[in-house]
Amino acid sequence: MGEITKISTLNGIAASGDIAIAKAYCLAEPALFFGVKMIEDFAQEIERFRAAIAKSKQEIKKIHDATKIKLGKDNAAIFDAHLLVLSDLELINAVEETVKSQQINAEYALQCTSDRFISMFEQMDNEYMRERAADIRDVTKRVLSHLLGVELVNPGMISEEVIIVAKDLTPSDTAQLNRQFVKGFTTDIGGRTSHSAIMARTLEIPAVVGTKVATERINHGDLVIVDGISGEVIINPTEEIVAQYEKKKADFAAQKAEWAKLVNEKTVSADGHHVELAANIGTPNDVKGAINNGGEGVGLYRTEFLYMGREHLPTEDEQYEAYKSVVEGMNGKPVVVRTLDIGGDKELPYLSLPKEINPFLGFRAIRLCLEEQDIFRTQLKALLRASTAGNLKIMFPMIATLDEFRQAKAILEEEKQKLSAEGIAFSESIELGIMVEIPATAILADQFAKEVDFFSIGTNDLIQYTMAADRMNEQVSYLYQPYSPSILRLVKMVIDAAHKEGKWAGMCGEMAGDETAIPVLLGLGLDEFSMSATSILKARSLIKRLNKSEMKELAQNVLNMSTTTEVKAAITAAVK
Amino acid sequence: MGEITKISTLNGIAASGDIAIAKAYCLAEPALFFGVKMIEDFAQEIERFRAAIAKSKQEIKKIHDATKIKLGKDNAAIFDAHLLVLSDLELINAVEETVKSQQINAEYALQCTSDRFISMFEQMDNEYMRERAADIRDVTKRVLSHLLGVELVNPGMISEEVIIVAKDLTPSDTAQLNRQFVKGFTTDIGGRTSHSAIMARTLEIPAVVGTKVATERINHGDLVIVDGISGEVIINPTEEIVAQYEKKKADFAAQKAEWAKLVNEKTVSADGHHVELAANIGTPNDVKGAINNGGEGVGLYRTEFLYMGREHLPTEDEQYEAYKSVVEGMNGKPVVVRTLDIGGDKELPYLSLPKEINPFLGFRAIRLCLEEQDIFRTQLKALLRASTAGNLKIMFPMIATLDEFRQAKAILEEEKQKLSAEGIAFSESIELGIMVEIPATAILADQFAKEVDFFSIGTNDLIQYTMAADRMNEQVSYLYQPYSPSILRLVKMVIDAAHKEGKWAGMCGEMAGDETAIPVLLGLGLDEFSMSATSILKARSLIKRLNKSEMKELAQNVLNMSTTTEVKAAITAAVK
Repeated sequence: MGEITKISTLNGIAASGDIAIAKAYCLAEPALFFGVKMIEDFAQEIERFRAAIAKSKQEIKKIHDATKIKLGKDNAAIFDAHLLVLSDLELINAVEETVKSQQINAEYALQCTSDRFISMFEQMDNEYMRERAADIRDVTKRVLSHLLGVELVNPGMISEEVIIVAKDLTPSDTAQLNRQFVKGFTTDIGGRTSHSAIMARTLEIPAVVGTKVATERINHGDLVIVDGISGEVIINPTEEIVAQYEKKKADFAAQKAEWAKLVNEKTVSADGHHVELAANIGTPNDVKGAINNGGEGVGLYRTEFLYMGREHLPTEDEQYEAYKSVVEGMNGKPVVVRTLDIGGDKELPYLSLPKEINPFLGFRAIRLCLEEQDIFRTQLKALLRASTAGNLKIMFPMIATLDEFRQAKAILEEEKQKLSAEGIAFSESIELGIMVEIPATAILADQFAKEVDFFSIGTNDLIQYTMAADRMNEQVSYLYQPYSPSILRLVKMVIDAAHKEGKWAGMCGEMAGDETAIPVLLGLGLDEFSMSATSILKARSLIKRLNKSEMKELAQNVLNMSTTTEVKAAITAAVK
Repeated sequence: MGEITKISTLNGIAASGDIAIAKAYCLAEPALFFGVKMIEDFAQEIERFRAAIAKSKQEIKKIHDATKIKLGKDNAAIFDAHLLVLSDLELINAVEETVKSQQINAEYALQCTSDRFISMFEQMDNEYMRERAADIRDVTKRVLSHLLGVELVNPGMISEEVIIVAKDLTPSDTAQLNRQFVKGFTTDIGGRTSHSAIMARTLEIPAVVGTKVATERINHGDLVIVDGISGEVIINPTEEIVAQYEKKKADFAAQKAEWAKLVNEKTVSADGHHVELAANIGTPNDVKGAINNGGEGVGLYRTEFLYMGREHLPTEDEQYEAYKSVVEGMNGKPVVVRTLDIGGDKELPYLSLPKEINPFLGFRAIRLCLEEQDIFRTQLKALLRASTAGNLKIMFPMIATLDEFRQAKAILEEEKQKLSAEGIAFSESIELGIMVEIPATAILADQFAKEVDFFSIGTNDLIQYTMAADRMNEQVSYLYQPYSPSILRLVKMVIDAAHKEGKWAGMCGEMAGDETAIPVLLGLGLDEFSMSATSILKARSLIKRLNKSEMKELAQNVLNMSTTTEVKAAITAAVK
């Protein structure tokens, strides 16, 4: 019984299937607490400060070299900048001078001095200088950690099997994770559609997000089970519990093996209707996962990853290579490429975008591309060139009005003419579609359907705008309701509008891979379901068991219900 | 000709009718520039610092006394806190010590020291202490202004006729303005539906917002014409131009006099259909304006003003008095009271709400009230008690799901039962409605209509959510399109759903008072139009000239159009 009291279980959101069992690696910011202290021997205090500087330099060099080997020179450059800060005599001397003249502790002198330098740099109207402020902040943290004897963590240096425990994981954090050693992760915040959850599914890493208290409850080194199927995180389990979960993990593997038999099959409902199950991908490396998981195409290629984690925009040729590699890799299967969807929560350090009060309602995606046309045109040119390599389709994100679509299409036509004039080949039959992720566009889908070749419903954003609730904000996440009759009605409007004009309608939000939603979506007549590659086989296995005509009836019923609870109950009853 | 070159005209958004001509009063933050300087005579530098402190104290005392007289003791309390900072020997001594030991200028020593204190206070987990950080920041600015010989402005101290020129005006800025002296204002940012614009209309102050460059182009003391009809701002006009605008001002006054004849008339279209024109108000003081401008009721009473600009929540009795005063003032005419709509861009200092990444998609209005039920119940009780004084209706803001409405209604019923048990009277026939400002709610209006007594469409938010564009964000403000067919379709869904269940549908967003929108809204069958009081007579004059049956045809046509441009052209053609 004594054993059991030490165990505790957290409940979060199951973000990515499967189970992981390993030691916790806490990615939390360490607390660097100190106050002002008068010191007796300032010479000794300055020695202490210099020793901390020296240690910091050594450490940064080590991280620099490791990053260079693993992630390349560009990614390591930041640490060169950090070393420069530590060699800045103006800063160092100012700290030592303060220690000496005010007889105060080095921590305090360093903090005060570095705050001064940071605020000086931040006030400069120059992007480069403002970045230096960030460097000083990072380096100060490191030197303080040595002064205080507190260890800083660095996820890039992990060299044993661990489960990452963090408040949240940004896309760049996730990119740095070493898949060889990171067996799973759990976070305090985030939901099923947060970046960390989507990345976990793409990387096939078990994950539980939104536990609220993981960083508080889990200590570095604790044994942790992350159950990405049930959404549970077990801290310091007994051996019996570990054994239990090892069995669950094996069972899951067996079920996956069963699903794997469907990898080369078409997705056909029990009553013989075919739909297409495609994969959402982020990089050319994900093509293998799409194929291995039985993807009938790529329904969403998020090109923004090409633009992230680097120092400048990708060139036309770099883009061309990436797009071509995906299209070729899919070997004639359709690849829907979404043009740059940056802004909002996805920033590019080298594009100095304005800070916005409501970034989700801001200057992003097509809005930005229509303004920054050079960026847009380069991408379109690269896409056109890659179109000869297979079945490439182009899709614009965040279209809210027909004017925007017409403007974007006109730019594409201009780029086609330029290529023709230069004698560069491109496919003449590229389908051109839009994401439907803004309520206005779903409501006016009948008008859009006359001009676009296809729709792909982006439910992650569509739901948050339709419900006016930030899906990342825990206090309103109860309003993120994919099964709400309001959302289902919008989905119906889009599908019906497409079919009336002889076009197709797909969905590339998380909802497309959601077992509860799939029956209704099938009933509403959705043509293409694009999801995390790892969800495809499970979805195929489900659809093969469903009767489309029955689901059509189900869909009709739920559209006239008034709450999500009723809809869910009706689906469960119909599918059981 | 020489004269003309000095004149310049800025174009902005006409936020509030009429014309103002007066000297510019620039409310810009002064630039407090300085660098670090070595000084020879530290004793003299310390003297200079002490003199700046003394001047600052005098100045703060003066502002304190003026504020106390004009705005009351509570509003003046902040300046007591500022005086305390200036008497804090720990801070003062630290600055003087730094000047002495480092032989540097007082500005620099003050900034560095105060940054240290601010960051110390800000890190404390205590609201009171964090407020002290803000005090130190304000006071530091003031002392720096004296050290540097730069004048700080204080809008509360204005004592001659001026036009305020500012980057933006917050609700509390606007509240401090003295209507006797402030003849108009112009801002760099904001649109027709920004707070500053809405306040300008309520206060009947001519205003042009969103000029982008007003603070840059206009110097303190320049003669300025603000034309709130055309949206122009003229800087340093010639005498002829001033005369021209004085004539325009007189003509406008004459037209207003013409409209004023309609003050006691009903609003009836040319073919005999009656609609109700009501006023949006913020405080009991606005009732007079609603009556004087011919309001047939109050369509939106924004109760949040009762909660703002104070140190703690208003008591039930304070609220009761305010609500009763409005209901009595309207003398039997309907008064739709919206329950607390706080959060988002409207913060309350004494409610420590979490900072949100997307406040417009966050924890606000009914979402907050369902969580913080004490606040909500107090308001409902006060409303119930006030209901016996006249024709009071209750409306919940930001309802996104039927579950939320049912929960809010259940709380209201509980409060009714408690009052009954206590033997306190309330009206038995209070109508209970909701704002329709979230797309999900408009789309599901048929289901809502079965349970609510009325709808009031809040277009300001509805448009920004439907288009996924922050109306305050200039880079996407082109998407704030009230005449978009998507928006008009949602409006139609709401009106049709209400009528099918025998309920009424109103509108209380800015669109309800918009001359271009009114013909279509009349055609769609809107029952109640609630707007800034000053727009009512103009709207009545317009509706009296319109034929509802013709407008119905117009509405049918525009619903099937694909862009805002087409819709606008069709309206212009039909109304001409």
